[in-house]
Amino acid sequence: MNSHIVKAYDEELNHLTAEVARMGGLAEAQVSEAIASMARRDATLAQQVIDRDLKIDALHLDIEHKAIRLIALRQPMADDLRRTVAAIKIAQDLERVGDLARSVAKRGLGLIDGEPLTPLTRSIERMGKLVADRLKDVLDAYSAGHAERALQVWRSDEEIDEHYNALFRELLTYMMEDPRTIAACTHLLFMAKNLERIGDHATNIAEQVHYEVTGREPEGARPRTPAPAAPIDEPGRD
Amino acid sequence: MNSHIVKAYDEELNHLTAEVARMGGLAEAQVSEAIASMARRDATLAQQVIDRDLKIDALHLDIEHKAIRLIALRQPMADDLRRTVAAIKIAQDLERVGDLARSVAKRGLGLIDGEPLTPLTRSIERMGKLVADRLKDVLDAYSAGHAERALQVWRSDEEIDEHYNALFRELLTYMMEDPRTIAACTHLLFMAKNLERIGDHATNIAEQVHYEVTGREPEGARPRTPAPAAPIDEPGRD
Repeated sequence: MNSHIVKAYDEELNHLTAEVARMGGLAEAQVSEAIASMARRDATLAQQVIDRDLKIDALHLDIEHKAIRLIALRQPMADDLRRTVAAIKIAQDLERVGDLARSVAKRGLGLIDGEPLTPLTRSIERMGKLVADRLKDVLDAYSAGHAERALQVWRSDEEIDEHYNALFRELLTYMMEDPRTIAACTHLLFMAKNLERIGDHATNIAEQVHYEVTGREPEGARPRTPAPAAPIDEPGRD
Repeated sequence: MNSHIVKAYDEELNHLTAEVARMGGLAEAQVSEAIASMARRDATLAQQVIDRDLKIDALHLDIEHKAIRLIALRQPMADDLRRTVAAIKIAQDLERVGDLARSVAKRGLGLIDGEPLTPLTRSIERMGKLVADRLKDVLDAYSAGHAERALQVWRSDEEIDEHYNALFRELLTYMMEDPRTIAACTHLLFMAKNLERIGDHATNIAEQVHYEVTGREPEGARPRTPAPAAPIDEPGRD
């Protein structure tokens, strides 16, 4: 290969990584704004989050298309192939994060006309902030190519699960004490589940970053809270 | 290219498609058995479904690896590239179907020690059978390379959504009438949601089959039930 071709190839690869980082920034903003729209009962903001998801979907398709083209035309090896495959996989996770943020915003819309359930929505907001922070951390690790920072996110997934389990119990108690809140609480239940799943995607991305940088999966089992089986308990991760 | 290389290439591509079909067969069985384990309150079967999901995950990684290798080494064009990309995407959907079936089995385990909620579990069973049939239909269409049959699955997604919405209302009514069932009903609620999401993946696969065979997306908007916004209603698809 002459240096002209090598340069074009490097540029394509850098462009791909930059596009994934940009998609990450959008997904992160969608999560934060979905939570904010729920907390402030802001229908306009919720609708914006819902509409903006199309942009994330379009970016996803574009990244996938470019990555496959790059593999077919440039036949990247070793590090470069890992980088390209990581871009495809991280974009997939981000696309799902976008869908989940849209779903949080939609469920928030469904709650606006009802009575505010302030203690519960505060708990959801706290969990949402935690999840948005994790997503931010792992995207920073991706942009910096920093395996150790990715590993920190990977290890902290348990904290999100604990939050989710506590919230699940809080919601059940609320519903049992006042059955009139059941319909609204099921929305909050799905919201909490969606946030937990966004946390899972952050963990997936952390694994991809670690693999891209080091060529290895993180060592040890993926940290997860044990799943109790009694009906009152959440069986944890889906 | 000489005929020897062409033959090896065709064989690789056929092998890839066959592996995706095999993964589809496994995923379909997991969905049916997850539902059966819930209906029969069979803990052994539920645990088998949970354990077998690892096999689907391993197949997924293998297919992805082979498809990327094929793109890099053989640089497939037009129809062949579409076939390879479709294999990657369908395998992704099937991997998620496997996760969702595992989750249904886990939630079924959580219900075994409680009182049977027979009318509700019957409704879940009916919805589960409908979803498993859709998955079977779309996998048949994939194996046969049959765009029209895939389109039929794609068009029938609405029926699953209607089932889900009816089940959602049934569950809410149950919880409100007897708050002691709330904990168990939340499991059934997530199960129903998981089945609806399996239906979504069947629809995704139908789109991929149509694209692989014809080179075009199915025409018209993706059929979906309109999303009512009142708190009592489900905002539909996530």
